[in-house]
Amino acid sequence: MATAGKVIKCKAAVAWEAGKPLVIEEVEVAPPQAMEVRVKILFTSLCHTDVYFWEAKGQTPVFPRIFGHEAGGIVESVGEGVTDLAPGDHVLPVFTGECKECPHCKSAESNMCDLLRINTDRGVMIGDGKSRFSINGKPIYHFVGTSTFSEYTVMHVGCVAKINPVAPLDKVCVLSCGISTGLGATINVAKPPKGSTVAIFGLGAVGLAAAEGARIAGASRIIGIDLNANRFEEARKFGCTEFVNPKDHDKPVQQVLSEMTNGGVDRSVECTGNINAMIQAFECVHDGWGVAVLVGVPHKDAEFKTHPMNFLNERTLKGTFFGNYKPRTDLPNVVELYMKKELEVEKFITHSVPFSEINTAFDLMHKGEGIRCIIRMEN
Amino acid sequence: MATAGKVIKCKAAVAWEAGKPLVIEEVEVAPPQAMEVRVKILFTSLCHTDVYFWEAKGQTPVFPRIFGHEAGGIVESVGEGVTDLAPGDHVLPVFTGECKECPHCKSAESNMCDLLRINTDRGVMIGDGKSRFSINGKPIYHFVGTSTFSEYTVMHVGCVAKINPVAPLDKVCVLSCGISTGLGATINVAKPPKGSTVAIFGLGAVGLAAAEGARIAGASRIIGIDLNANRFEEARKFGCTEFVNPKDHDKPVQQVLSEMTNGGVDRSVECTGNINAMIQAFECVHDGWGVAVLVGVPHKDAEFKTHPMNFLNERTLKGTFFGNYKPRTDLPNVVELYMKKELEVEKFITHSVPFSEINTAFDLMHKGEGIRCIIRMEN
Repeated sequence: MATAGKVIKCKAAVAWEAGKPLVIEEVEVAPPQAMEVRVKILFTSLCHTDVYFWEAKGQTPVFPRIFGHEAGGIVESVGEGVTDLAPGDHVLPVFTGECKECPHCKSAESNMCDLLRINTDRGVMIGDGKSRFSINGKPIYHFVGTSTFSEYTVMHVGCVAKINPVAPLDKVCVLSCGISTGLGATINVAKPPKGSTVAIFGLGAVGLAAAEGARIAGASRIIGIDLNANRFEEARKFGCTEFVNPKDHDKPVQQVLSEMTNGGVDRSVECTGNINAMIQAFECVHDGWGVAVLVGVPHKDAEFKTHPMNFLNERTLKGTFFGNYKPRTDLPNVVELYMKKELEVEKFITHSVPFSEINTAFDLMHKGEGIRCIIRMEN
Repeated sequence: MATAGKVIKCKAAVAWEAGKPLVIEEVEVAPPQAMEVRVKILFTSLCHTDVYFWEAKGQTPVFPRIFGHEAGGIVESVGEGVTDLAPGDHVLPVFTGECKECPHCKSAESNMCDLLRINTDRGVMIGDGKSRFSINGKPIYHFVGTSTFSEYTVMHVGCVAKINPVAPLDKVCVLSCGISTGLGATINVAKPPKGSTVAIFGLGAVGLAAAEGARIAGASRIIGIDLNANRFEEARKFGCTEFVNPKDHDKPVQQVLSEMTNGGVDRSVECTGNINAMIQAFECVHDGWGVAVLVGVPHKDAEFKTHPMNFLNERTLKGTFFGNYKPRTDLPNVVELYMKKELEVEKFITHSVPFSEINTAFDLMHKGEGIRCIIRMEN
């Protein structure tokens, strides 16, 4: 490669300040250091987490910064010690990593890598504590180790999943965060038996992916719960068979669901992060065998409260992070699920804009329009 | 049988009033009705639940009553429609049942039978709402469908487990409640992998049985937690390798355990019913893969509280009832575990008294002496 080992000048969408529109700038992207890879991003999409940290209400602000973590690209060059990836490989960047060495990576059950677990405060590479992005010699900070709102980005090899090169990157790029999170919560953690009844709390992208997981698993009844009834019709495409809007009922949602299902649902998946929805999602599962799975990230001061007899009556409550998928080991298989046409990715993609119009993707998300907006780098 | 179809006169220990010593009386035991069996009790033992309802502090008092639910006996006669049991069968009575027809019995995961689930308020048979015990024509009430403090008792067939006739009833009688509850909580629900670390909260009979389950499962470290240090030495026999007395530490137990285990135990089993211990048992498991199991029955006003991130970090919390054993289907296998010498039952049996001295068993339990006291009917 002509560019390997050299600084690459390319376009990136820089967030100079919290909440201000991104500005497409020419940035310098340093070569990958030991255990890093430099990737040419072809497609990226916008996830709520980008918006949340761009708004920086409550967190430590880290600016100027390049956001973006749902994406697909091709390896341009690799740093010292990288043996799993080579230039030309098709990859999905992931906001959390898999070092393959720590107790979590060695456990069959965990994907919470000690070394590369998501860190939203860090704006630099873990190898040397420096940024690989700069403008006129001044650093521009990274975001969750991915920073995919750039034509080129540098990532730790542990945060890069190599996928089938035949898979269309403009579709599977959405599998690198939200869709896999919801899908895995159902398939890997809730594990609904064939013919079972599943409740999905929150019908945003993650919740719809959780419903899609229930559909794939063969659930008979998939009950979508949302305060916004406008989402119900669309959710039928993802397998939802029935809907509950808590606003339509005087009774607690737990009770509404219990009455609809002769004592409770078999599985529930909570995708809003609202503490009351979390409690409802747990209390609505059937005694004896019900399993509730928490996905949505709660407020830092939230407190989960319930009567312990709800557990004693043989209910299970679990939480999940990134759908329990190990990024490098499992994400290629999620892509294959799409290639086999079991997982339908297209229906998650409702909009598409060129990189120059990236702020439109932010506007769409603010308005709650559509599910995922693909940003085409067209480089 | 000469007695089949006839009233049997025999001795029973009657609780005439809450908290007053039991009185050995001659009672009349009516023949079993449809779907019932009459059983000659050979050995019974005393469990905390008997004492709790005998004291009747807080619950609806149901007196006069015959307590007792941990026992072993032989079927004397069976009522209409009973095909699974015949006179001469060796059996263990169980305080909760298995009808084999309801959704819970048909689920592979639940043992919370809709028809025969434990009911501590009911003092009569479910078939006709009457008691089978009487003195001079006046009814003496049943307890949890078993009332084993009687030479003969009548039970629903769904509350009677048929076991290997070779098994010594003076030993395996203790498997009909507490020991199986603790054992199953670990083996069936917590399922510790070989070589894992397990924390047991509360080292009474149930907790020791949970430790025994961890020992059988091949756990490497079994940490016993109890406020009473006198229990520690005995607990070594049940596999405990280390001990924590919360009184010895200024820090929360969760933190003490986390520091002892490099981030948390793999599994925990809570056997006290104390709400703080429940929260500690959950919060002390390792993120990524930890599973906590609640066994102890909480106060009716208790509230389980934790930060929901403790779930999101991939911890699991489950509750169990009777160790998730289905009484009729699974209890015979627990007896076999003893017959194969994998489960060591003898060490749970610390005392033995004749039926005439049944009140001594209550005294021993009040003083916290020993684990299980066998009451020999010697009839």
